[in-house]
Amino acid sequence: MQRYFFELSYNGTDYFGWQRQPKEISVQQVIEDSLSKMHSNQEIKVVGCGRTDSGVHAKHFALHVELPIISDTDKMTFKLNRMLPDSIVISKIYSVNSELHARFSAKARTYRYYIHSAKNPFKKNLSWHVPQELNIDEMNKAARQLIGKKDFTSFSKLHTDVKTNICNVTKAEWVKEADGIYFEISSDRFLRNMVRATVGTLMDVGFGKIKAESMSEILSAMNRQAASVSVPAHGLFLWKVDY
Amino acid sequence: MQRYFFELSYNGTDYFGWQRQPKEISVQQVIEDSLSKMHSNQEIKVVGCGRTDSGVHAKHFALHVELPIISDTDKMTFKLNRMLPDSIVISKIYSVNSELHARFSAKARTYRYYIHSAKNPFKKNLSWHVPQELNIDEMNKAARQLIGKKDFTSFSKLHTDVKTNICNVTKAEWVKEADGIYFEISSDRFLRNMVRATVGTLMDVGFGKIKAESMSEILSAMNRQAASVSVPAHGLFLWKVDY
Repeated sequence: MQRYFFELSYNGTDYFGWQRQPKEISVQQVIEDSLSKMHSNQEIKVVGCGRTDSGVHAKHFALHVELPIISDTDKMTFKLNRMLPDSIVISKIYSVNSELHARFSAKARTYRYYIHSAKNPFKKNLSWHVPQELNIDEMNKAARQLIGKKDFTSFSKLHTDVKTNICNVTKAEWVKEADGIYFEISSDRFLRNMVRATVGTLMDVGFGKIKAESMSEILSAMNRQAASVSVPAHGLFLWKVDY
Repeated sequence: MQRYFFELSYNGTDYFGWQRQPKEISVQQVIEDSLSKMHSNQEIKVVGCGRTDSGVHAKHFALHVELPIISDTDKMTFKLNRMLPDSIVISKIYSVNSELHARFSAKARTYRYYIHSAKNPFKKNLSWHVPQELNIDEMNKAARQLIGKKDFTSFSKLHTDVKTNICNVTKAEWVKEADGIYFEISSDRFLRNMVRATVGTLMDVGFGKIKAESMSEILSAMNRQAASVSVPAHGLFLWKVDY
């Protein structure tokens, strides 16, 4: 057996997230089932670089898996893509040292959250429609306060099984595009629901409901109630994982 | 009552085409139902600039409708967009002379057909995935033979209720983009299934199955069997209607 890394992307619209669920369809299950079919129905388990919620997309996702030696990884990529639905695409397969772990070896992750202002039928499920005006300068002023080693308790779901809520955020920026904006955030780790709660709070800054300066207070509160409601899943993309 | 023109776009994925169907959901029905709700449930009929098949999209579509005087068309556009699903967007409403007809006054229509080469989970339902190599130069050589007043019987569904199959094609061209190609065709009129049958035939030229020079022979055959099979609906967009 040899450990392989897969680089992939997926459209999360039709899935109940990355992680295998007892009754609902997940990206992990679809990939494991395809790999199992290719290997005489042996049970095969893959380990993802993280979890994405129901409806969240991945522009770049990584997993590791133990498989019998693959003689031609390009051919394997091609075969697997033919088996997988249109919504899941493997871009690369390569062998790695057995100590490299898709989740624990990841040094940083980057997410993007997409928002479009004019209703657009072709962005359905891939961007959030927000017709109201947003003050991007204020949103960026607020976003800059997130950079550094900060406790993100105020921006995460309660009762998660992690020991610390400190994240080292290296980038947090709103970028304007022709027909909308997106928020890009990079960190060594992300807590559950963190990006969606952060974006929801920054949106309230953009609407003028919260002052940009109050971001630091919201962080210090270490209480989810201090921040705003989360934005919908379908504008969110796991954008990049760095090892 | 006053005649109004609506400019709109829609994602055809969830609809059985533009035209109202007895049992299936159509774009026309959804718009008529919304307009009816806004007008005390009076029955309201809209006339589209053409028909699109199940799964075909419209980047730009036009319709006309008789309505009680609208005092503020921008407000009406806004209200209607809030009622309509994400997949249908009204971009403009304006009053017109009662002789302007959405279908019969149209001077030209333009369609685009989108193809992408690398499997892409975010182009699902909006472009056709064709991994094989295509010879674009040959496809364009073939496409140029379609320009002018030509009989498109070979590229249309049989038994349509039209008197002549002559179309005046003013543009027929393949354009390369970063991650794929599209075919753009403009004509005074289009027969049923014409774009999809034409693209299917041009693809066979691109694959090297048919010579570019044989396009003229296929046109002269005036027989649907002479052309290739139609490509899937989901890569096709009604792109523009000119009055």
